[in-house]
Amino acid sequence: MLFMVEMTVNVPHGVDQTTFQQEVATEKARAEELQRAGTWRHLWRVAGQYANVSIFDVESPGALHELLIGLPLYKYMDVKVTALCRHPSSIHTNDQ
Amino acid sequence: MLFMVEMTVNVPHGVDQTTFQQEVATEKARAEELQRAGTWRHLWRVAGQYANVSIFDVESPGALHELLIGLPLYKYMDVKVTALCRHPSSIHTNDQ
Amino acid sequence: MLFMVEMTVNVPHGVDQTTFQQEVATEKARAEELQRAGTWRHLWRVAGQYANVSIFDVESPGALHELLIGLPLYKYMDVKVTALCRHPSSIHTNDQ
Amino acid sequence: MLFMVEMTVNVPHGVDQTTFQQEVATEKARAEELQRAGTWRHLWRVAGQYANVSIFDVESPGALHELLIGLPLYKYMDVKVTALCRHPSSIHTNDQ
Amino acid sequence: MLFMVEMTVNVPHGVDQTTFQQEVATEKARAEELQRAGTWRHLWRVAGQYANVSIFDVESPGALHELLIGLPLYKYMDVKVTALCRHPSSIHTNDQ
Amino acid sequence: MLFMVEMTVNVPHGVDQTTFQQEVATEKARAEELQRAGTWRHLWRVAGQYANVSIFDVESPGALHELLIGLPLYKYMDVKVTALCRHPSSIHTNDQ
Amino acid sequence: MLFMVEMTVNVPHGVDQTTFQQEVATEKARAEELQRAGTWRHLWRVAGQYANVSIFDVESPGALHELLIGLPLYKYMDVKVTALCRHPSSIHTNDQ
Amino acid sequence: MLFMVEMTVNVPHGVDQTTFQQEVATEKARAEELQRAGTWRHLWRVAGQYANVSIFDVESPGALHELLIGLPLYKYMDVKVTALCRHPSSIHTNDQ
Amino acid sequence: MLFMVEMTVNVPHGVDQTTFQQEVATEKARAEELQRAGTWRHLWRVAGQYANVSIFDVESPGALHELLIGLPLYKYMDVKVTALCRHPSSIHTNDQ
Amino acid sequence: MLFMVEMTVNVPHGVDQTTFQQEVATEKARAEELQRAGTWRHLWRVAGQYANVSIFDVESPGALHELLIGLPLYKYMDVKVTALCRHPSSIHTNDQ
Repeated sequence: MLFMVEMTVNVPHGVDQTTFQQEVATEKARAEELQRAGTWRHLWRVAGQYANVSIFDVESPGALHELLIGLPLYKYMDVKVTALCRHPSSIHTNDQ
Repeated sequence: MLFMVEMTVNVPHGVDQTTFQQEVATEKARAEELQRAGTWRHLWRVAGQYANVSIFDVESPGALHELLIGLPLYKYMDVKVTALCRHPSSIHTNDQ
Repeated sequence: MLFMVEMTVNVPHGVDQTTFQQEVATEKARAEELQRAGTWRHLWRVAGQYANVSIFDVESPGALHELLIGLPLYKYMDVKVTALCRHPSSIHTNDQ
Repeated sequence: MLFMVEMTVNVPHGVDQTTFQQEVATEKARAEELQRAGTWRHLWRVAGQYANVSIFDVESPGALHELLIGLPLYKYMDVKVTALCRHPSSIHTNDQ
Repeated sequence: MLFMVEMTVNVPHGVDQTTFQQEVATEKARAEELQRAGTWRHLWRVAGQYANVSIFDVESPGALHELLIGLPLYKYMDVKVTALCRHPSSIHTNDQ
Repeated sequence: MLFMVEMTVNVPHGVDQTTFQQEVATEKARAEELQRAGTWRHLWRVAGQYANVSIFDVESPGALHELLIGLPLYKYMDVKVTALCRHPSSIHTNDQ
Repeated sequence: MLFMVEMTVNVPHGVDQTTFQQEVATEKARAEELQRAGTWRHLWRVAGQYANVSIFDVESPGALHELLIGLPLYKYMDVKVTALCRHPSSIHTNDQ
Repeated sequence: MLFMVEMTVNVPHGVDQTTFQQEVATEKARAEELQRAGTWRHLWRVAGQYANVSIFDVESPGALHELLIGLPLYKYMDVKVTALCRHPSSIHTNDQ
Repeated sequence: MLFMVEMTVNVPHGVDQTTFQQEVATEKARAEELQRAGTWRHLWRVAGQYANVSIFDVESPGALHELLIGLPLYKYMDVKVTALCRHPSSIHTNDQ
Repeated sequence: MLFMVEMTVNVPHGVDQTTFQQEVATEKARAEELQRAGTWRHLWRVAGQYANVSIFDVESPGALHELLIGLPLYKYMDVKVTALCRHPSSIHTNDQ
């Protein structure tokens, strides 16, 4: 099932830059892995923001939760979750 | 270029139902046509709401505006537009 | 899976009272039926409000959406949906 | 009587991790104890958030207050309390 | 137990004045009766608003709900309910 | 004249606990003194919050201001002031 | 004592224009009378809005309330009241 | 021309008190000077808040900006600016 | 001097279309005239909204107010006014 | 294409002033360069705020994003992006 997740990253003033850059790199690797697996179906940058709009295809809200709290940058994020479903006018069979 | 558009339909109390159902049918036909053309790239229903989350692929903000105000239900909609761009961690070449 | 749904009913000034009372009665019958089926797992009144807090156990966001838009009073409702999952400190096996 | 309590945990940047993990463990033990006693009737995680939705069955607002401020993580929480009561369409005798 | 209730009255444009004035008179009589009974413990006007701040002393959230929805002007009101309890610095024995 | 004052205490992370507890004790003594004087007419805890709802009976907005900024915990507070007046349906002669 | 009152006038669509213009004229006469009396101390238009910022000098919140609800346009207004007092850096003796 | 400026001072936890008190004293001297010059036409304290409501009479928005950013406490302030103009019902010739 | 004005047009359900289209035409003529005069310096459509972002160059807030309330569609508008001034990094001499 | 960008700079308490002033100087140089290139088409200060209103003329949302995150003060900014397009009443050919 599909969920839209909007993530905004708030980096605290004074965070250790070496640690943070390692977290960013690990986050990127994890995001690529989850996209290849088809779980993180779409990932867009919001223009002008340190934020993204994502579409996840997961088995349950619980699976989504485990995935999100496992992200290295999760501790800096504001996260908004919206449950999606098939639109009656959609022509795409995989848009569920 | 990509824009996320969130549309919420507020049907006024006392609207003429025959006219409204015709507008709904025309809207559905128009949405299907724009999806087939690749302009209305994604269309999801927000669970529990008379609302959708859409991704449009258009040539300019002006083209998006013309498209949206031409929708038969536009006059009942609250519309929120968010400009998207390629995320550095995206693996999808067509997510721009 | 579980969703919290918060419904607030806004009755328009000037609604026909006979029709409205029939809709209220149908809504009540439908709510009781869905509770007996285990789908509408909990239903509480918010003190002082024409509003409820509900917990639904459904197969998907799409199933939740169909159920909600089928309620007779849906057209008067503001609806807020929150996806829930099992809490690591929960001791209740059916709280998923 | 029943209250819905929505708790969101905001962990300050730079909190001592050893102390915090002890507080988390104590909170878990306390939550389990209160659930076994029937006071903390339901406990769900909000998907994607360090937050929960809880239903408490207490004797008074004062008893609820004492219980909440005694939680080890209370000092990091935003708390929202909503008084609930029996819904006229509820079929569950213990939903008060 | 005590609840603060903040009521704001929104009179729809075009309401029938004769009916409305009768509702106002009935509301006043009911408010006086509930004050004499000790249930509606305090009732203040918010300066400049068609609104009040009230303190109710009731047996349960359910009793509060029945009382409020029975008020003749309830259908025009926005209502906010806040559960109160004894403050550790209070010197008044009846402030619970 | 009467003012409702809603105070919410936000204790900064890392505040010195010895100093803070002394401030809490001084605040309690001051609150009791002002209640005995009839100035701080009511003081209730908001259930679940480090917050109170208070009714003050003072000679002027200026007197209220001096009183509030003199409270030891004022520097940690969010404060909301609402001017009250006699409600036409009040039966209490001292509710002004 | 001084209160800042911010009034915004929302004229309902379909109001009878003759009646409304009479109410506007009566409001203007009343505002001029109260200014001459020194009660309505200042009256400014908010640029671009059907709204004003006013400073009232009244004996009590109750006197302010009676004055405001007696204005002919009060039924169309959103009103915000803020209690003011003397600023320690003010050099104006009549700014109280 | 006239502008209403609402300033709220947020003193950061842990600010150096000696420096801060000097800034407060300089601010007071500057406010008195600008009042004597007729530029800072009114200055009121908001009851219960570390905040003021001010009316400035300046030659342009740019002159207002220079004046405000030059205030010693500006760096701690939230500032809201509202452009005012003459009200058609004003009887005061200098209320512009 | 420059003001940013953000106008959002809310057309009431049931407005007479003939009258409304005449008002739209008159508004367009007036907007063009004011642009030619240099008063309405910029006028952009907000993509997806019945709204615009405008920059006005006027002599005073009062002149801006007269101009705005004289627009034929003003009665349907939400208007937000922001006073602008020269930015220290601007290279445009006419951006004031 | 045109985007309105509203930037508000929030300087953290305790930032190193030497580093910050260097960032401000680099920002100014970069803003001037982008204005000369025609990309940063307009730049206004919001009166009374450490904030600006800007109009950018860029090739895509992605180009805008790269430009904004490259600004030296970006890490302190709240940024709001609004996609603009040609207004049907605009007389300026370059307002797109």
